[in-house]
Amino acid sequence: MLLLVIYIIAITAEAMTGALSAGRRSMDWFGVVLIACVTALGGGSVRDVLLGHYPLTWVKHPEYLVLTCCAAFVTILIAKWMKHLHSIFLLLDALGLIGFTIIGCQIALDMGHGFVVSAVAGVLTGVSGGILRDILCNDVPLVFRRELYASISFVAVIFYWFCMDVGLSLEVTVISTLVFGFSLRCIAIYFGLEMPKFIYKDDDEQSASSKDES
Amino acid sequence: MLLLVIYIIAITAEAMTGALSAGRRSMDWFGVVLIACVTALGGGSVRDVLLGHYPLTWVKHPEYLVLTCCAAFVTILIAKWMKHLHSIFLLLDALGLIGFTIIGCQIALDMGHGFVVSAVAGVLTGVSGGILRDILCNDVPLVFRRELYASISFVAVIFYWFCMDVGLSLEVTVISTLVFGFSLRCIAIYFGLEMPKFIYKDDDEQSASSKDES
Amino acid sequence: MLLLVIYIIAITAEAMTGALSAGRRSMDWFGVVLIACVTALGGGSVRDVLLGHYPLTWVKHPEYLVLTCCAAFVTILIAKWMKHLHSIFLLLDALGLIGFTIIGCQIALDMGHGFVVSAVAGVLTGVSGGILRDILCNDVPLVFRRELYASISFVAVIFYWFCMDVGLSLEVTVISTLVFGFSLRCIAIYFGLEMPKFIYKDDDEQSASSKDES
Repeated sequence: MLLLVIYIIAITAEAMTGALSAGRRSMDWFGVVLIACVTALGGGSVRDVLLGHYPLTWVKHPEYLVLTCCAAFVTILIAKWMKHLHSIFLLLDALGLIGFTIIGCQIALDMGHGFVVSAVAGVLTGVSGGILRDILCNDVPLVFRRELYASISFVAVIFYWFCMDVGLSLEVTVISTLVFGFSLRCIAIYFGLEMPKFIYKDDDEQSASSKDES
Repeated sequence: MLLLVIYIIAITAEAMTGALSAGRRSMDWFGVVLIACVTALGGGSVRDVLLGHYPLTWVKHPEYLVLTCCAAFVTILIAKWMKHLHSIFLLLDALGLIGFTIIGCQIALDMGHGFVVSAVAGVLTGVSGGILRDILCNDVPLVFRRELYASISFVAVIFYWFCMDVGLSLEVTVISTLVFGFSLRCIAIYFGLEMPKFIYKDDDEQSASSKDES
Repeated sequence: MLLLVIYIIAITAEAMTGALSAGRRSMDWFGVVLIACVTALGGGSVRDVLLGHYPLTWVKHPEYLVLTCCAAFVTILIAKWMKHLHSIFLLLDALGLIGFTIIGCQIALDMGHGFVVSAVAGVLTGVSGGILRDILCNDVPLVFRRELYASISFVAVIFYWFCMDVGLSLEVTVISTLVFGFSLRCIAIYFGLEMPKFIYKDDDEQSASSKDES
């Protein structure tokens, strides 16, 4: 099954990004494994808990949990050579983002939800693993700053719906959404595209600048 | 229905506080929308997940989710004029806090829970949206520092129970709790009332001061 | 019942660590109580939500919630003398860690889950209260840095399984796991044992050092 292969690539890639984040914070091995698991499986868990879709994926298939732990340990071993693999890594991560989005969207559809809820489920599955990772590492979530990360997840959901609506089969829809979203993400990374930012300064700014003067 | 009107005002006001927080951190539009949704709908979601009250409000009524997104975009547009609306905003937020508290408390009562659990449900609904917002923006939650914010939510729950116990009808109870809690919050803001703080310094302080000397 | 006594000691000890953390951040009384509750009951709640094990412990037995609140207030009162009780406190915390682990593991087993899921449930129950506490206080979770904290929880789960597998009765298994895990934790604290850390520096380091030079 195509989706399963994508899912396994996605959780492996996400587990590795989690492990690297933990390494940047000099965590011990347990922290690395935990953050890898949260990054890889957290998005799906958040979706399932919010939709009441029990049992969670990793409770039903504990082998994914074991896979994630192995990916974390492999990351610890090969971290030195990681920089040379940076671009491969970004591609896997992009594949993972779109794969997670499609899976999340499809699960909500299978539960009988409409467009809005399945769009939220897709985007949540795609991005909330990374958000949880950044919260545990005490960062402002990167997702809100990186090039079009979450927005591509959202556009992929719309494309997916469009394909389904036109009457394409599930396989064709999945593959074309994957190709579409993946290309979009690559274009965004290559050209450094970003969403417009909303910058709001309130009165704190004045007091901050007056502090600088004093 | 009165509670529905209050609920809609509450989620709109909370979505706007969320959007402004995201703007202070210079997030992109997606981040602004996500944080607005989490702030407005997160409190209810936390309550529903903890009590096992499925489906969640926004899954059942996706229109609230759409409303929250719209409120976030409106906030981006009108942010420049926001400072002049500051006091209106605080009042709406106060209304939202009490409204959320009443709704959370009532849902727990409808599920057959007793005083302690419904008090927790009320306070959680009122404050945890703001807590999640501050976690995502990587702040120490404001709720624990602002003037009597969470405590007013708790006092409103006690007042609500008292009214029910005395035998008042649901409408009268809701309106009087609303008026009572709202006035209390206004008084707290006006006089800058705060709860006593618990300040604990352990041995870290000594090592910190010795660092300053060196 | 032995497990109940351990559970009550555990939530009291964890509530106190939570209250002290809140005090270090100068939170108001409400914040102290909330963080005490999250630290003491959050681990079990996370486990129950992820496994779909409703109702949660504190919803079924609100008296534990009341106990936690009382422990928080007592901590505020006796904080001045807390430093002299530091070693007793560490012992109670160690007892709590192992107690939570055993309870979490046993609940997952009662629900019919296998080794991997019950191990995760045990470790989650043991450590995620502390993780939530540190997130709310805006720290990088201590669990990933302290001496063998989470790893001891994991080793205790393996020991527990081993005892069950050998065919020991529940009582004997619980007591021997408790003694085993508790001793292990004491040894770890006494000798300051730590897990190997995974330290990963990427290109940010170079730019950081170049900033220092300029």
